[in-house]
Amino acid sequence: MSTSFFQDMLGEIAERGRSLLERSAVVPAISRVGWWNTAKSADIAELSHALLSGRGEASGVAIAKQVLDLYSGLSPEDRTAFFGLLARDFAPDPERVRAAWAEYDASQSPASLHALLRAVEPPRQELFRRLNLAPGGTRALVAMRQALLAEADNQQEFASVADDLEHLFYSWFNRGFLMMQRIAWSTPADILERIIRYEAVHTIQGWDDLRRRVQPPDRRCYAFFHPSLIDEPLIFVEVALTRETPHSIQEVLADERETLPPERATTAVFYSISNCQPGLRGISFGNFLIKQVVEDLCRDIPSLKTFVTLSPVPGFGRWLGRVAENPDAAGLPGFDPSRLSALQRPSWHKDPEVAAELRPIVLGLAAAYFLRVKSGKGQPMDPVARFHLGNGARLERLNWLGDTSPKGLRESAGLMVNYLYDLGTIEAHHEAFANQGVVAASGPVQRQLRDFAAGILEGRVAV
Amino acid sequence: MSTSFFQDMLGEIAERGRSLLERSAVVPAISRVGWWNTAKSADIAELSHALLSGRGEASGVAIAKQVLDLYSGLSPEDRTAFFGLLARDFAPDPERVRAAWAEYDASQSPASLHALLRAVEPPRQELFRRLNLAPGGTRALVAMRQALLAEADNQQEFASVADDLEHLFYSWFNRGFLMMQRIAWSTPADILERIIRYEAVHTIQGWDDLRRRVQPPDRRCYAFFHPSLIDEPLIFVEVALTRETPHSIQEVLADERETLPPERATTAVFYSISNCQPGLRGISFGNFLIKQVVEDLCRDIPSLKTFVTLSPVPGFGRWLGRVAENPDAAGLPGFDPSRLSALQRPSWHKDPEVAAELRPIVLGLAAAYFLRVKSGKGQPMDPVARFHLGNGARLERLNWLGDTSPKGLRESAGLMVNYLYDLGTIEAHHEAFANQGVVAASGPVQRQLRDFAAGILEGRVAV
Amino acid sequence: MSTSFFQDMLGEIAERGRSLLERSAVVPAISRVGWWNTAKSADIAELSHALLSGRGEASGVAIAKQVLDLYSGLSPEDRTAFFGLLARDFAPDPERVRAAWAEYDASQSPASLHALLRAVEPPRQELFRRLNLAPGGTRALVAMRQALLAEADNQQEFASVADDLEHLFYSWFNRGFLMMQRIAWSTPADILERIIRYEAVHTIQGWDDLRRRVQPPDRRCYAFFHPSLIDEPLIFVEVALTRETPHSIQEVLADERETLPPERATTAVFYSISNCQPGLRGISFGNFLIKQVVEDLCRDIPSLKTFVTLSPVPGFGRWLGRVAENPDAAGLPGFDPSRLSALQRPSWHKDPEVAAELRPIVLGLAAAYFLRVKSGKGQPMDPVARFHLGNGARLERLNWLGDTSPKGLRESAGLMVNYLYDLGTIEAHHEAFANQGVVAASGPVQRQLRDFAAGILEGRVAV
Amino acid sequence: MSTSFFQDMLGEIAERGRSLLERSAVVPAISRVGWWNTAKSADIAELSHALLSGRGEASGVAIAKQVLDLYSGLSPEDRTAFFGLLARDFAPDPERVRAAWAEYDASQSPASLHALLRAVEPPRQELFRRLNLAPGGTRALVAMRQALLAEADNQQEFASVADDLEHLFYSWFNRGFLMMQRIAWSTPADILERIIRYEAVHTIQGWDDLRRRVQPPDRRCYAFFHPSLIDEPLIFVEVALTRETPHSIQEVLADERETLPPERATTAVFYSISNCQPGLRGISFGNFLIKQVVEDLCRDIPSLKTFVTLSPVPGFGRWLGRVAENPDAAGLPGFDPSRLSALQRPSWHKDPEVAAELRPIVLGLAAAYFLRVKSGKGQPMDPVARFHLGNGARLERLNWLGDTSPKGLRESAGLMVNYLYDLGTIEAHHEAFANQGVVAASGPVQRQLRDFAAGILEGRVAV
Repeated sequence: MSTSFFQDMLGEIAERGRSLLERSAVVPAISRVGWWNTAKSADIAELSHALLSGRGEASGVAIAKQVLDLYSGLSPEDRTAFFGLLARDFAPDPERVRAAWAEYDASQSPASLHALLRAVEPPRQELFRRLNLAPGGTRALVAMRQALLAEADNQQEFASVADDLEHLFYSWFNRGFLMMQRIAWSTPADILERIIRYEAVHTIQGWDDLRRRVQPPDRRCYAFFHPSLIDEPLIFVEVALTRETPHSIQEVLADERETLPPERATTAVFYSISNCQPGLRGISFGNFLIKQVVEDLCRDIPSLKTFVTLSPVPGFGRWLGRVAENPDAAGLPGFDPSRLSALQRPSWHKDPEVAAELRPIVLGLAAAYFLRVKSGKGQPMDPVARFHLGNGARLERLNWLGDTSPKGLRESAGLMVNYLYDLGTIEAHHEAFANQGVVAASGPVQRQLRDFAAGILEGRVAV
Repeated sequence: MSTSFFQDMLGEIAERGRSLLERSAVVPAISRVGWWNTAKSADIAELSHALLSGRGEASGVAIAKQVLDLYSGLSPEDRTAFFGLLARDFAPDPERVRAAWAEYDASQSPASLHALLRAVEPPRQELFRRLNLAPGGTRALVAMRQALLAEADNQQEFASVADDLEHLFYSWFNRGFLMMQRIAWSTPADILERIIRYEAVHTIQGWDDLRRRVQPPDRRCYAFFHPSLIDEPLIFVEVALTRETPHSIQEVLADERETLPPERATTAVFYSISNCQPGLRGISFGNFLIKQVVEDLCRDIPSLKTFVTLSPVPGFGRWLGRVAENPDAAGLPGFDPSRLSALQRPSWHKDPEVAAELRPIVLGLAAAYFLRVKSGKGQPMDPVARFHLGNGARLERLNWLGDTSPKGLRESAGLMVNYLYDLGTIEAHHEAFANQGVVAASGPVQRQLRDFAAGILEGRVAV
Repeated sequence: MSTSFFQDMLGEIAERGRSLLERSAVVPAISRVGWWNTAKSADIAELSHALLSGRGEASGVAIAKQVLDLYSGLSPEDRTAFFGLLARDFAPDPERVRAAWAEYDASQSPASLHALLRAVEPPRQELFRRLNLAPGGTRALVAMRQALLAEADNQQEFASVADDLEHLFYSWFNRGFLMMQRIAWSTPADILERIIRYEAVHTIQGWDDLRRRVQPPDRRCYAFFHPSLIDEPLIFVEVALTRETPHSIQEVLADERETLPPERATTAVFYSISNCQPGLRGISFGNFLIKQVVEDLCRDIPSLKTFVTLSPVPGFGRWLGRVAENPDAAGLPGFDPSRLSALQRPSWHKDPEVAAELRPIVLGLAAAYFLRVKSGKGQPMDPVARFHLGNGARLERLNWLGDTSPKGLRESAGLMVNYLYDLGTIEAHHEAFANQGVVAASGPVQRQLRDFAAGILEGRVAV
Repeated sequence: MSTSFFQDMLGEIAERGRSLLERSAVVPAISRVGWWNTAKSADIAELSHALLSGRGEASGVAIAKQVLDLYSGLSPEDRTAFFGLLARDFAPDPERVRAAWAEYDASQSPASLHALLRAVEPPRQELFRRLNLAPGGTRALVAMRQALLAEADNQQEFASVADDLEHLFYSWFNRGFLMMQRIAWSTPADILERIIRYEAVHTIQGWDDLRRRVQPPDRRCYAFFHPSLIDEPLIFVEVALTRETPHSIQEVLADERETLPPERATTAVFYSISNCQPGLRGISFGNFLIKQVVEDLCRDIPSLKTFVTLSPVPGFGRWLGRVAENPDAAGLPGFDPSRLSALQRPSWHKDPEVAAELRPIVLGLAAAYFLRVKSGKGQPMDPVARFHLGNGARLERLNWLGDTSPKGLRESAGLMVNYLYDLGTIEAHHEAFANQGVVAASGPVQRQLRDFAAGILEGRVAV
């Protein structure tokens, strides 16, 4: 009998996270209770207004459930119409905003400031909070934002609605509410299946490939979960335990390789990190996840000294294309881009001669790409670089032919890089990067750029 | 091996909820990881500002932990000073608010509205969200609001700070995130101990008394929990399963009584409901809890037909005192209050003659108290009445000598009442009450008032 | 903090079941405690004797662990030698048996009977019980019996050792200690992988095929587990929920089919049941599992009325072969077996004419095979028939071309049958079968045999 | 959804352990399934025979349930009659035993030995195994043995029945199946309540006293549980973490004392160990529990160096009484027992002069009691001494006035002793004790005896 307390609590958590539809299919008996039946209307607009009104206070859970049930059955057109409703009818009332401002302007009191805040906050934020009363509400709202974002390109006004959801999610998905879980071969299959589906960096080729990434003692995978989305990973990271910083993804993902006993590992390599929920776009989990994993690994495996990534350079290929057309884009006066044309040949990387010629040029350009080239906002152009540098990591090494998959060749010219998470300098690097845009890079990488630039000037390189 | 996934998840949930201090005592090993050690300052103000700055982005979890650690060690004076800091230094910047208004006023665009919203939102809201990054953060913030509220009487500016926390908690403690758990004799003792401590209506006299309320098959207790406060009930309700609506708390709490097999019960009596967390004052859980319990009981025990409370009337005693001094307060022209003086005699309720004389007068006045008398806001004066009527319940019956404990005699003149939760009419009652202030009452209660008023006019009553 | 009790208990259960080797790899720190280090010997024979001696009483857990560690590293030859040791050195002492008999023969007292029992019980039973003190002991002993059985064909004396383990397992794996668990798509992947591997009737073709058997709402899978082998299914059964008793495995396992909402199902079809642990051979779980599943399904899905199998007839093909050579084996005077030769043609079942001719002959012979033909022990020859009839089920229907897989055609001439579990007659059928060898069969099946036999006599059939 | 696997498994474990009666009250719906209703008889004897017969094979779970249901309702007389039935009708058949012996005697084959074993094993062992098929069976059988033992004094034949259950329990409750759990303030209250009830050494005075023993960080309590008795501790031990070996139970159980941070503790003191299940008498758990706790504490608290008990001497008081009457019993020639009479005075221990005089005499006699005096079997007379010395511990110190409670003064003349578990010598001590009866004792204790004996001879002591 006495197991019931936490067993039930776990059950409750699971239940809450379950999607509304499943639940309503499974438990129709619930309608015996009167207030699940109060809907006199099947009109989603009417019910949404009711949810914000007095009726919503009495029967919020039931009405929220009805709204989400109706929502899940909307045709694409009706859904777009509903989003329009949210954008217009549940926006702040300009008259009320103006009146609140006037009051504040006159009194400058805390109360009037508070009233102004309430007037400016879009009513749909409260609507969303009330929709969350329904079982499965969080899951439904995350999906709703995904749909809103997909339509926001065409319908600018939807962006505000998506922003309001983002503001809510930023609060609800606070790191303090997340649970980090190790993903292993003993993890429930439905969750593993999602890992296969969500992997965004190095595609998982099926169950055998997945197993190679989560079962060996020198491979780890960790994910964040939220109590209201219990079986949905939010983000996950894959880690290899090694004795050296790897040069290529091929050696990490090899089918046949010797397993390293974890207690002999010195290095933890983060070789893939994937966000899973498009509906949570803009809520950043990666920084927290990496640091939590470092912390946990430190505790479990005292022999670990080095925490490093093996990362793609997804913007590099496109940038090289631009440089090929317009060499000035590289910021390297005197650089002759004609030799880059070898990159167009199929399977160029398998021709040792071609590869040997390209190597210094590509690595030199890569050093420039990371250290010199900036986006409009003064940041590195590469999104992965922005992420890790923003976390306080340091660009440690450029790996020639680190990823020879078609995608790797196309997007990164085969290049992979290591970012080093050095615990003693993370904060200083983060601040220098955030405040002055300083890109932390190892001596060798800096030298690569210097030598390359000098080489161009001296005519040694590629001219 | 394969149990680990959900076992760990449960562990994570438990861990997260644990108080910061316990944790830091238990796991000092964690400091081997560099970033737990980054504090170059022991100054809580400086660290709080750092938490909102770029450093907070890199090392949010660690800084949040340090701030909360420091907070927990503050002297009362230093804590007050810290609250002052929150009130002043983390309030919206009036210049920024004004500028944002000007921008909005000029353009009326969604972007400028959004910017205005950001300018008006107090920065301490973001500070609190970042403090929640730390393990045990939610618990610490709830305690912080409790302390703020305690000081807000003297320091008006603290009220705004407490309001900002309330706004956050309203979002974080959304019913969609709560878990209802049955509290039973097999519940962990530390949770049961809190139930004993938090019971606010009918004091639990110790472990034996507690056991009588949670162990027999015809007694139930349910509580809401939040995943981040896993062992802290937020609110709980005690329920008796019976065959009739009880007239007194004495019969419900009797030491010796026959147990009713649940499958024979027809009536669920909510005889006590207690909020547990002063730091969550203003966040209303009771309505949700009662309705969830009704739903669950409906499913488990199909024989149940009636859902009713046995409630105190905590404002009645004081009101009777006012009526005794100033009979007009009762709104009953012609009423002579002198007979009420019998209520001052010790143990008056044990004298059958006195009790018989008082009975019609007190019940009549009670009917008036519920149905006629209004507070300044046009609502019933009794807080318990406001709660249940606001939930859509109906005042069903007045119970003479329903609570003869010293507290019951003092606060309610021994009166208890039943509020009926009739599933078919809850919503209509709620709306009539919310919109027009209509107090839903049964025919007998209405008649009691009519007859009493008529009796006074005709000289039949108490003159 | 308070989750710890049952979370830890679950952890303990998981831990206990873990294999010894894994554990010793993971937790070497344990050796700091002196008594894990007491082995002065690496000789498994010496340690086995020590385990039964006084040392075993003081340090049983540690010595048991050492014995099992050593055992796991034995070469095949050394293992055989160790089994020989168990067979000889840990058998009852004939002198002691004789002396105990003499004592009992003289006194006939309960005490002397008890002493005789102790003398006759092989000391290796106590050795095995003490080996079970070690973490992972149960798992190791089950594996040991599997190895013993594999060698028992050549080494007759090993059979007694295996018998002693069986006697222990019969007690340890008592149904009262087993836990039935539903296997679903949310089951940990390592357990699902074992389901794929252990399926013995209709091979699971990989993860997609598995998913088709466990994920749709009208498909179920249940397994028995033991607390000491927490992640090892002992036996599992696959169930299809339908509206009619199916005629073929093809319709059950079809890739594309319409899913039936469970609440509309009337029939539960047990279409595969597989034992998983060769080391537990002889311990029967199937009867308990089927009946437990029936009970659980009854409770969950009130619309279910019929519980039936779709079973192979694995001995039928071989028996048909014998009949083809020697028609008398069928016990059907006058039967001409020459027409059976069509069964030899490849893909005969795809030729409608051939199939139509074979159909009455094969079905008639099948009826005879089930109802008339007996093994030496007077039981049906078919092992699956013996199992279900022994459970009290009734042979309900013969399904022509119920399994057209190569294996089905080869082993069962494509035949599948349904056994009906009719709750009202199970016990009577079981007793009639167990006591008088009566094969319960439906009217149609009995008629099939009668008509076929008559047809032969009248020359109507296949002559 | 995906939590279900292990959540359900835990539920299954809990369910299985639940008592039969509770279960049948809760889930009557189960009877819809036919075979729960097969009992045509309410006669427990008839059903017990049926359970061992063919019917038992078909419907074992149901019949077992019926037998246990009937058993639980038997009057004391009928229960005694049922025990008589078990003793006589389910004993081995002497004719069958004789025939099996003849066969074995003739052939000496393994098969005939095996057949003899089966003939000698009482059929009630199989009956008990089948009764265990029912939910709650294990619990019911443990209670049945408790009842049998209670009646065995008057009915000698019941002892054999109890022995057969003991044999089964010895197998079922093998240490490999037990789970050690920490008992803490967060343990479910129903389990804590049992701890209060079962404490046999130093009575727990209620919930506050319990809390002092399980909540402070320098206090621990551990228990063994079995998966089929999930909420019933089998044995538990209470531990104090200290910096020195304590001299008295008063200092350990003091209401007010300073708490020691565990990481500063050097010594773990086992100050109370209690068996909980009279039905498991004779199955020894204590040795395993102490050693498991030592192991776990070693891992958790590296600073611990010393593992020691603070134990009562429950046979000492009675023995002193005998010595007072007959000084020769002490084996100390020349000892004059008259001074022992002071022990009869009420509150003698509070009189410093009396106490000072008694001290050397009582301590000297205690040394003799432990080191010289033997029971008939050549073992120490004190049961607690036999237990710890049998585990390989060493008698370390005699503590004058170590327990001044009435019970302590009465049973142990206020004496408490420490037994030291020295990991390096446990096995040697155990063997010397088991084989040669050597009592391991520290130098000081040995000297105390030597000096005392010499003192008597020299007339220095108490004459």
